[in-house]
Amino acid sequence: MDIREKIFANLSSVKEKSPLIHHITNYVTVNDCANVVLAIGGSPVMADDLEEVAEMVGFASALVLNIGTLNSRTIESMLVAGTRAKALGIPVILDPVGVGATKLRTKTAEKLIRVLKPEVIRGNMSEIMVLAGQNVAIKGVDSVADEQGSSVIAKNLASNLNCIIAITGKTDVVSDGRQVCRLNNGHRMLADVTGTGCMTTSLVGTFCGVTKDYFTATIAGIICMGLAGQFAQASLQLGEGIGTFRVRLLDSIYNLTPEILAREGKISDK
Amino acid sequence: MDIREKIFANLSSVKEKSPLIHHITNYVTVNDCANVVLAIGGSPVMADDLEEVAEMVGFASALVLNIGTLNSRTIESMLVAGTRAKALGIPVILDPVGVGATKLRTKTAEKLIRVLKPEVIRGNMSEIMVLAGQNVAIKGVDSVADEQGSSVIAKNLASNLNCIIAITGKTDVVSDGRQVCRLNNGHRMLADVTGTGCMTTSLVGTFCGVTKDYFTATIAGIICMGLAGQFAQASLQLGEGIGTFRVRLLDSIYNLTPEILAREGKISDK
Amino acid sequence: MDIREKIFANLSSVKEKSPLIHHITNYVTVNDCANVVLAIGGSPVMADDLEEVAEMVGFASALVLNIGTLNSRTIESMLVAGTRAKALGIPVILDPVGVGATKLRTKTAEKLIRVLKPEVIRGNMSEIMVLAGQNVAIKGVDSVADEQGSSVIAKNLASNLNCIIAITGKTDVVSDGRQVCRLNNGHRMLADVTGTGCMTTSLVGTFCGVTKDYFTATIAGIICMGLAGQFAQASLQLGEGIGTFRVRLLDSIYNLTPEILAREGKISDK
Repeated sequence: MDIREKIFANLSSVKEKSPLIHHITNYVTVNDCANVVLAIGGSPVMADDLEEVAEMVGFASALVLNIGTLNSRTIESMLVAGTRAKALGIPVILDPVGVGATKLRTKTAEKLIRVLKPEVIRGNMSEIMVLAGQNVAIKGVDSVADEQGSSVIAKNLASNLNCIIAITGKTDVVSDGRQVCRLNNGHRMLADVTGTGCMTTSLVGTFCGVTKDYFTATIAGIICMGLAGQFAQASLQLGEGIGTFRVRLLDSIYNLTPEILAREGKISDK
Repeated sequence: MDIREKIFANLSSVKEKSPLIHHITNYVTVNDCANVVLAIGGSPVMADDLEEVAEMVGFASALVLNIGTLNSRTIESMLVAGTRAKALGIPVILDPVGVGATKLRTKTAEKLIRVLKPEVIRGNMSEIMVLAGQNVAIKGVDSVADEQGSSVIAKNLASNLNCIIAITGKTDVVSDGRQVCRLNNGHRMLADVTGTGCMTTSLVGTFCGVTKDYFTATIAGIICMGLAGQFAQASLQLGEGIGTFRVRLLDSIYNLTPEILAREGKISDK
Repeated sequence: MDIREKIFANLSSVKEKSPLIHHITNYVTVNDCANVVLAIGGSPVMADDLEEVAEMVGFASALVLNIGTLNSRTIESMLVAGTRAKALGIPVILDPVGVGATKLRTKTAEKLIRVLKPEVIRGNMSEIMVLAGQNVAIKGVDSVADEQGSSVIAKNLASNLNCIIAITGKTDVVSDGRQVCRLNNGHRMLADVTGTGCMTTSLVGTFCGVTKDYFTATIAGIICMGLAGQFAQASLQLGEGIGTFRVRLLDSIYNLTPEILAREGKISDK
């Protein structure tokens, strides 16, 4: 089975198994994350209290950690839930939102990586560059670096951390430290809406809930959001904007099929 | 006045009085809950700090407690606000989200019920079965039990707790411990969107803010969401999915009238 | 350059500079606030942990403080972030949601004003009357006062606090203590959706991020929301309601241009 066939099979598995995806995430985009997991066919649960996260993650097929609005209470819950997930063989997917912007974010992302060894880390170029120890000018949570060398950065960091690294942007790059895959789906309008990065991570988490091949799972999650962004944008009529775009984004995810992925997904191995 | 007439009158009252509904609820669906209360004609307020909840609930016509993302801070606020509500004769509506999934949720739901004696409890079948002390396989916050015996379970639990019990699902069941009412509105697509359960509880809370007949208030809230789900789904065109469905759900609630309820609502007393 | 020309220039500046707007805000409408900032052309960041807010606000062009779901943890973060903002010359915009409803809200709003001396305060009539020390019947977070005397109240309070005061409602009033500007855009349907007040404050904050003329910045933010409300309502067809209205509101903000503001904005200086 080549990589494309694996991706299509992953989507069928999600719809069949409806994996439970436990999130400890930010309060800005949490509703979007829950809905995108439902749209693709998974089952989301959000729970962040220290007293219940270890128990809750035991029911889950994947754990998504997102530090968008981190605080001391939820950081501790992330560590406890993540530690339990690792003990149970449940994959941990990290979205290091805004890492590098503040010492707290950098320190927290580094600690989560060191302690939990996440199976997948997805960020934009500037976030991944921070994790790779490269100098980068940060402007809040936006990416400022160009995408030159992104394949090298992703591959080296994936190799160093022994995990999947995904850099999303104009071209998305995914590496497991040996292979690199570049994806050319998506539309720049995805950057005009809050939460498209968080939702991508939730989709990646959902696919990681149905296969141990986290490399293809990560690619599958990113392709789904990219295609949905293209379809949503293509549907817009005069006078419509990000309000309608957000609605169509969920519609498009909901209506994705393996056939659509096969026909429209642009994947290049290299 | 028979039960149907009471329900239609309740909707007119909500639009006339615009009751203030105080919520202590989860951060996943809180925006949807606020908008659904506004859509039906009520006035939502969300406040959860221990220092203000007792004062805030004093202005309210009903208090909705939802444990979807409970934590030690908000659990205490729920107890304080609920105790004050009871002292003032303000109805308390409980949504025991995910009860049974973790010890914290079960312990908290049981404590809220024991201390506050809510006027209404609304959950899905597995949540209500947990409260009824029955064995049930829990998968996160989803219902897994079939609906056999739901009328008996609702009636017995309502009688034991001396409150209204509502089990929502394919067929909704509402009981006050003596009467049982079964509702056959709704569409399975309601389960594909996060927050439709929470929103139903908020609608129930809104109706409880205008009448002391909590049995018909609960029925009214559930019918409104069921019909809105049907209308939203019926409006969908090719390529549309849960994004558009969510939008039309709020549109449909906003445009409900007593006449529409009378014409479309499927209620069977038995 | 007259006031209208300044407002149009402000919109061009926002789209050109994409100012970063740091929010410490409520969890009910936070997603809407992020999206409205993106829709107008700014860049939102939400961060509320005490350990990072002083650092985060250093990257921002404005700080928006909204007490809609205040608690002891975030109140302290507001004070720390605000103090840092003032030291750096970054404008602070305060939305005193529900002030007067509870002692905690009143005490907190007064403290934030006393300590931080915000550049702009935006509220509805009853909220501003509370800050002005006038008696007012509060019903939760809704305005109950009529708009008689609003110009006088705004002007006096702006003069006393040496800031911009904006009262939004049927007619919006903005004063810097000397000038008063009344705005007659908007549609009453804006009151049927949660978060339109919060979003207006976020728009005001975004404009304050590109000019030191906070008077015209405030007017610009309020006009944008008013016009978007009109356009959104005008677009509605039979069967549509607040679901579609919310979508079109973001669409309309996204498509605003200086030309549209020039043609449609109703501003009267007096």
